[in-house]
Amino acid sequence: MNPQDKTRLAFECTRWLIGHPRTRQTAQALLADLAALTDPALLPDIYGQGDLISDFEKQVAALLGKPTGVFMPSGTLAQQIALRLHADRSHTPHVAFHPTCHLEIHEQKGYQLLHGLHGVLVGSPHRLLTLDDLTKVTEPLAALLLELPQREIGGQLPTWDELTAIVDWARARNIALHVDGARLWESQPFYQRSYAEIAGLFDTVYVSFYKTLGGITGAMLLGSEDHMAEARIWQRRHGGNLVRMFPFVLSAKQGLETRLDRMAAYHAKAIEIAAVLAAFPEIEVLPNPPHTNMLHVFIRGDAAGLEQAALDIAREQKVWLINNFMPGQIPAYQKFELTVGDGALEFSNEEITMLFKTLIQQATHAS
Amino acid sequence: MNPQDKTRLAFECTRWLIGHPRTRQTAQALLADLAALTDPALLPDIYGQGDLISDFEKQVAALLGKPTGVFMPSGTLAQQIALRLHADRSHTPHVAFHPTCHLEIHEQKGYQLLHGLHGVLVGSPHRLLTLDDLTKVTEPLAALLLELPQREIGGQLPTWDELTAIVDWARARNIALHVDGARLWESQPFYQRSYAEIAGLFDTVYVSFYKTLGGITGAMLLGSEDHMAEARIWQRRHGGNLVRMFPFVLSAKQGLETRLDRMAAYHAKAIEIAAVLAAFPEIEVLPNPPHTNMLHVFIRGDAAGLEQAALDIAREQKVWLINNFMPGQIPAYQKFELTVGDGALEFSNEEITMLFKTLIQQATHAS
Repeated sequence: MNPQDKTRLAFECTRWLIGHPRTRQTAQALLADLAALTDPALLPDIYGQGDLISDFEKQVAALLGKPTGVFMPSGTLAQQIALRLHADRSHTPHVAFHPTCHLEIHEQKGYQLLHGLHGVLVGSPHRLLTLDDLTKVTEPLAALLLELPQREIGGQLPTWDELTAIVDWARARNIALHVDGARLWESQPFYQRSYAEIAGLFDTVYVSFYKTLGGITGAMLLGSEDHMAEARIWQRRHGGNLVRMFPFVLSAKQGLETRLDRMAAYHAKAIEIAAVLAAFPEIEVLPNPPHTNMLHVFIRGDAAGLEQAALDIAREQKVWLINNFMPGQIPAYQKFELTVGDGALEFSNEEITMLFKTLIQQATHAS
Repeated sequence: MNPQDKTRLAFECTRWLIGHPRTRQTAQALLADLAALTDPALLPDIYGQGDLISDFEKQVAALLGKPTGVFMPSGTLAQQIALRLHADRSHTPHVAFHPTCHLEIHEQKGYQLLHGLHGVLVGSPHRLLTLDDLTKVTEPLAALLLELPQREIGGQLPTWDELTAIVDWARARNIALHVDGARLWESQPFYQRSYAEIAGLFDTVYVSFYKTLGGITGAMLLGSEDHMAEARIWQRRHGGNLVRMFPFVLSAKQGLETRLDRMAAYHAKAIEIAAVLAAFPEIEVLPNPPHTNMLHVFIRGDAAGLEQAALDIAREQKVWLINNFMPGQIPAYQKFELTVGDGALEFSNEEITMLFKTLIQQATHAS
């Protein structure tokens, strides 16, 4: 099934275990809903200027306890810029991050080819980086990037004590701290601390608005006034200072205001789902219990059979269970990422058990 | 008057000599109008994939006679990428352009700081670059960027013969040719040749959708399949491969389909306006007659007085005449850019004469 037909099928479902319901997520519905919520007097932004963007930057900066923030169209832009700022200030190109860092595996090495930075990969790709891993680094580091939560290993988070020990180690060495907070909003129920307290550990903070918050697109980089003043210049250099971004900003603001308070409910449901799935002998869950609203699920079985079974359930029951199966380390297991949003809250645990029982049975018959 | 209040005043007018009427250009109106025109079945794009973007890329590629195109959120992104592609292929960092090139004066030298390119400035900032200027370049060039029309000198265009002589010179030296077509749509009435014929002179073409076409934001880079395949990777590196861009793409497509056919009418009106304004002893027009729908206008007088007079006309007559006065070379003259769109077509030449008579009189009294 080609990706477009598959996306179409996902939209034709009536319930979604992954993410948010797609009922109002066609292009037209997103635009119409956004228009309905917009102040009729609001004028479009221009090159990042205007009340809409500056008010939103202030709102997020206040929430994260940072002096100021810069709205940007993508996190790729925000994070390369953050690391460049730190590297320029410390006169060294070495920046440290986890081997599964977004900059390392999803950005075609832009940090290296555009900014001349050297990525020092710290720790194992299959677990969180530790203080012990860091002490083995020999290069003088400009910055340490921590991803909270670590997406590629199921959204794991270090404990607060582990986290602050790493931060203290970096501070003692004048290494700047940057947080890849693509899913930082989702970490609050785990730490049970304010966003400002979490963000307060870092010099620069990147957050995203289009994941659990459900915005169309968009990110923010936050930090000191002087860092952000220079970040705006780099945003321009990158071609990320767009003439108008109001559809992104409006939807980001809407997402923040409607979904931020639901993070604890999403996390609680993720813990329930993990327990339900882990009860299957064919399933492993990472991490269990989940640290955020995300879990990575490994199902024993054949990739084509599982894919076919999930599509059959979508067609027959109008339930969307799984976006994509990804190859994992053990060929006998197929991996998928489950992110709890408004969709999953509508399922009882018994229903989820039944759905995965069906999935596994049908996959076995199909293969 | 602060920029936001000034923008607000522009929106409160009922007629606009510059650009398009602002009646439906609030954030809400733009979103609602876009929603109304959107196919209810259309699904959002994802990271540049999906029918909406790929169909639009094919549509523009066909119009410009290029094998393929890549939709991008900004021209800054598109052009740095184009030059990088050419530089990598020719193993030299030297790229040539006019001293007022967008890359040189509006992008904080991103081409240099991100891509390590060296900009060779060719010719005078106050006139078009010529073949004679080019023959004086000593560096081995990877690419020559021509901006058609040259915005900072009033949208001037070389004649077709001058243009093809430059192109032939570059071809004979294996220098790649890139066109900064931020306003390429506007050049067609001058050349009276198809877009494909104009674009056919160049290896890579950048066009914009938010200027005269009136889209929200957005650009396209076009060229060969192999150039564009690599351009997509650079777009990702730059942070310009946004998870969703459908509001931009929909408005770009709408702008192209409704306004492309009006370019000749805009150009004809610009010629009339230039004649009207040039009749004032206090006014100089560049170029006269205009080559496109743009003219740069120099009015003798004091900056503060002229600014005040334009704002008074906006308040009293609800007519928006001028966006900004910019300092020019001769202190006695104030410069502004006049771009003819749907707004100017509603004014008779007599009305324009009366409005500028009032402007000059009031400015003289104010100062």
